Amino acid sequence: MEQILRFKEKLVRAIEKSNSYVCVGLDSDLKKVPEFIRNEKEPLYTFNKAIIEATSEDACAYKINIAFYESAGLSGIKQLEKTMECFPEGKVKIIDAKRGDIGNTSAQYAKAIFDVLKGDAVTVSPYLGYDGIEPFYNYGDAGVIILCLTSNAGSADFQKLKLETGEPLYKNVAHKIKLWEDNNPGQTGIVVGATHPGEIREIRDIVGGIPFLIPGIGAQQGDLEATVAAGIGIEKYPAMINSSRGIIFASRDNDFAEAASTSCRKLKDEINAVVGSL
Amino acid sequence: MEQILRFKEKLVRAIEKSNSYVCVGLDSDLKKVPEFIRNEKEPLYTFNKAIIEATSEDACAYKINIAFYESAGLSGIKQLEKTMECFPEGKVKIIDAKRGDIGNTSAQYAKAIFDVLKGDAVTVSPYLGYDGIEPFYNYGDAGVIILCLTSNAGSADFQKLKLETGEPLYKNVAHKIKLWEDNNPGQTGIVVGATHPGEIREIRDIVGGIPFLIPGIGAQQGDLEATVAAGIGIEKYPAMINSSRGIIFASRDNDFAEAASTSCRKLKDEINAVVGSL
Repeated sequence: MEQILRFKEKLVRAIEKSNSYVCVGLDSDLKKVPEFIRNEKEPLYTFNKAIIEATSEDACAYKINIAFYESAGLSGIKQLEKTMECFPEGKVKIIDAKRGDIGNTSAQYAKAIFDVLKGDAVTVSPYLGYDGIEPFYNYGDAGVIILCLTSNAGSADFQKLKLETGEPLYKNVAHKIKLWEDNNPGQTGIVVGATHPGEIREIRDIVGGIPFLIPGIGAQQGDLEATVAAGIGIEKYPAMINSSRGIIFASRDNDFAEAASTSCRKLKDEINAVVGSL
Repeated sequence: MEQILRFKEKLVRAIEKSNSYVCVGLDSDLKKVPEFIRNEKEPLYTFNKAIIEATSEDACAYKINIAFYESAGLSGIKQLEKTMECFPEGKVKIIDAKRGDIGNTSAQYAKAIFDVLKGDAVTVSPYLGYDGIEPFYNYGDAGVIILCLTSNAGSADFQKLKLETGEPLYKNVAHKIKLWEDNNPGQTGIVVGATHPGEIREIRDIVGGIPFLIPGIGAQQGDLEATVAAGIGIEKYPAMINSSRGIIFASRDNDFAEAASTSCRKLKDEINAVVGSL
């Protein structure tokens, strides 16, 4: 029965327990952290700890954007490690790292993400193909969340290119992700941006119940209602609707934690209202 | 005249000065480091320092595979930072990180690579498109080395998929890389695996004199002669032929530095012999 403890099951339980599809993105940009925290010795850690405490009741998952810690050097990584110890039991901890290399290198990245940082899941790029992704699957119950169709305008450069079959590349990626999930049941997730609600539905049709990680709400102006209808739907498929800046920088003043809590709960309620109306 | 000091010019000068196209890959796997070093406090740093001293006369560039440092935790990153200070003036220091995200995140990765680690160049994935790559170009004279056709078997999964134009995806990537280089002259590099000598020639025809980073010699069994003929050719295009395990783990005993030196010089001579015979 080991499979039911894998990534997907952990996520499903987290969604049920919090009654929330919200994933809080810890893109903790030092420049945007409130000034009274910025002068502390470990500002990213202090900030994250307060944000986590303020939002944990209303979030199923946290997405830690590792770039914002790497850019702060050794101290940033140390604060990331400390942040990883702040999450309440049961929350899904995603290291958003977009990693992907040849097999022996991906195995080292997997070690860094799962052994050193103790993440539950990692985001990875599909460009190198399956042998670059397999080492992440090999970490027991780890979640492997694969980029399919990203939220940025540049997603048109390659992801939307038409193949000779008539399908765009991202659909071919989706078909292969489905096969990989079949070989590693319960471990796969898929990134689809909220800026493409029509395509979210197409991808859902291809991959069935694989959990979606959906960025692009908020600062990137994705359409929440269409996104929820397509990504969660009447089937109540598992999904994490990510908001980063919209929650963690809802206020950049002394009341930042309260504002984050309010913003997180508001998003949770909006999503649940759409799900309830389907 | 700032442009002539950019990445490409720095590489051309490094190749001329060392009379070598060899890039030494510092995939410094702690498990493979000689045992008498492994027990030191900073084994990766000690190992790298000795390898750099032993090979610097015969290498134009070093490729630091960041995964092998991240997997060693905070201490690994610290040893990476110390390693970055060991390179003789003029060597091209590539952080092999395969990064790539949406713009505001890529800007943070660029800061980590160029400001914190002081790399001269970084490897990036094209999957997210130009807006995910642009922040790396925005670092003045930085080198942006974009994956095109990788050396692993999984490169067939997506990179070789045929588009509706009849071209495989990697050629579309090559065409776009050429445009991006035109907009950022002297800053671009391109990764093409030595396991695809025929395709190296096709890509050369598309991108002209953009520097190539060619992994896959040695442990991955790429064909050196065909690779050099296609990637450097009679035009003596700038290229970095990377060898990692074949040089740094040429011996795993007390004589590892000497063996690395011998292996590096042997590869340099083999490449130069092919170039001379064209």
